Amino acid sequence: MKELYIYGRKPIIAALRSGATISKIYLTFGAKGEEIDLIYTLAKREKIPITQYDNNKFQNLLRNNHLENQNHQGVIALKQIGQSLPLFQLLDEALINDKSPLIVMLDEIQDPHNLGSIARTAEAAGARGLIITDTDSSPITPTAFKVSAGALEFIPYTIIKNIGQAFRTIKEKGFWIVATDTNTQIEYTEILSNKPILLIIGNEGKGIRPHIKKMADQIVRIPLYGKTESLNASVAAGIIIFEIVKQNKKNI
Amino acid sequence: MKELYIYGRKPIIAALRSGATISKIYLTFGAKGEEIDLIYTLAKREKIPITQYDNNKFQNLLRNNHLENQNHQGVIALKQIGQSLPLFQLLDEALINDKSPLIVMLDEIQDPHNLGSIARTAEAAGARGLIITDTDSSPITPTAFKVSAGALEFIPYTIIKNIGQAFRTIKEKGFWIVATDTNTQIEYTEILSNKPILLIIGNEGKGIRPHIKKMADQIVRIPLYGKTESLNASVAAGIIIFEIVKQNKKNI
Repeated sequence: MKELYIYGRKPIIAALRSGATISKIYLTFGAKGEEIDLIYTLAKREKIPITQYDNNKFQNLLRNNHLENQNHQGVIALKQIGQSLPLFQLLDEALINDKSPLIVMLDEIQDPHNLGSIARTAEAAGARGLIITDTDSSPITPTAFKVSAGALEFIPYTIIKNIGQAFRTIKEKGFWIVATDTNTQIEYTEILSNKPILLIIGNEGKGIRPHIKKMADQIVRIPLYGKTESLNASVAAGIIIFEIVKQNKKNI
Repeated sequence: MKELYIYGRKPIIAALRSGATISKIYLTFGAKGEEIDLIYTLAKREKIPITQYDNNKFQNLLRNNHLENQNHQGVIALKQIGQSLPLFQLLDEALINDKSPLIVMLDEIQDPHNLGSIARTAEAAGARGLIITDTDSSPITPTAFKVSAGALEFIPYTIIKNIGQAFRTIKEKGFWIVATDTNTQIEYTEILSNKPILLIIGNEGKGIRPHIKKMADQIVRIPLYGKTESLNASVAAGIIIFEIVKQNKKNI
């Protein structure tokens, strides 16, 4: 079970209310007000221990967890995120829950904002999981978690080390693998849907690495009509994810 | 003509190479290296004055322009952004250039990242302009400009003060006004396209203000299938903008 610090009054109140598994709350002595009172009330109900620290100790705790520049408002909490699954289990559960599930793979997405934003979009679209390549990808940081608007709590994910082995498993399970590339004539509206799909989103600057792109059954692009040469990674992901969802719903 | 500071070595080199109108470059004495040499070479070619400041003066310049926390790498530049147009001209030029142009309105989008990201997506999709409401919206900051990947240089925009007057003009010119709202049964795929469209994107938290939503000819939503209750504003904008573009291209 992995744990992660979340921070800020409203996010912690929201987590407490949503039934998230919070194991500990830390406050500075200075933190006061209605929201802090509410945190006490909710924490008491859930029997979650609250520790009050003086400013020095609290600053140390923040520094040790790289939270000193975050808008923590004097309160942080330790929250379980328990959705990490082995790859085969992630795929099996997707296939059990959905006739044509969508899984989103992030190949070296480095900005935790993009990781969080893609997780939010994928979960909201009903995607069944995230696959994250382990080299040079953003880990699931507090920022990624915050930007995901809680989605990283709900969507299962797996971090893969052995790419070759992972793709053999993905293909064996019958997933159609879709990659994106600006150098192709096939548009994203032509994705063959109505089957399990693995959609690969590439690095913000370099795109998908060549040895991963080679694994794809279909390579598509989003046609652009302006002078801007590319879309933001999480916007591009959103456009393609919702196109796949739309096609799938049409086919039910 | 409006001017804006851009910052960082690579962005300034890119601006110099793209033919953007840079009127001045400021450097600290400490800034050295290949990229700085290249900035000198390019600036000389374009006859752009470079001013070197000692660290104190440079810090003052940064502070006066709220750039002290940006990753400026010891160099900033003043760049013209000349695409601000009166509303009627923005609409007329859109209609001259396009049989069924798309204009995107931002109603109190407060995060400059979202402003920049929506501008990038809109320009890349071939939208003909942005309309920004003046109350409580993010101005076009250096951050917005950077996140737009240059799109804010190319896409014309107008900032409106008198909402009622603006909508009278927009309707007179024949635009079909589309708003988004989670409380509607009409999906975004049902947008009536094949005509000039004004798409309104609402504030990150509150959505579109009621008196603006009332102006819409059609209110649509993006259907969600997960536990996450909403999409990021710029992702939602991307999904709807590209759906409109796709429908329009189909109808040509």
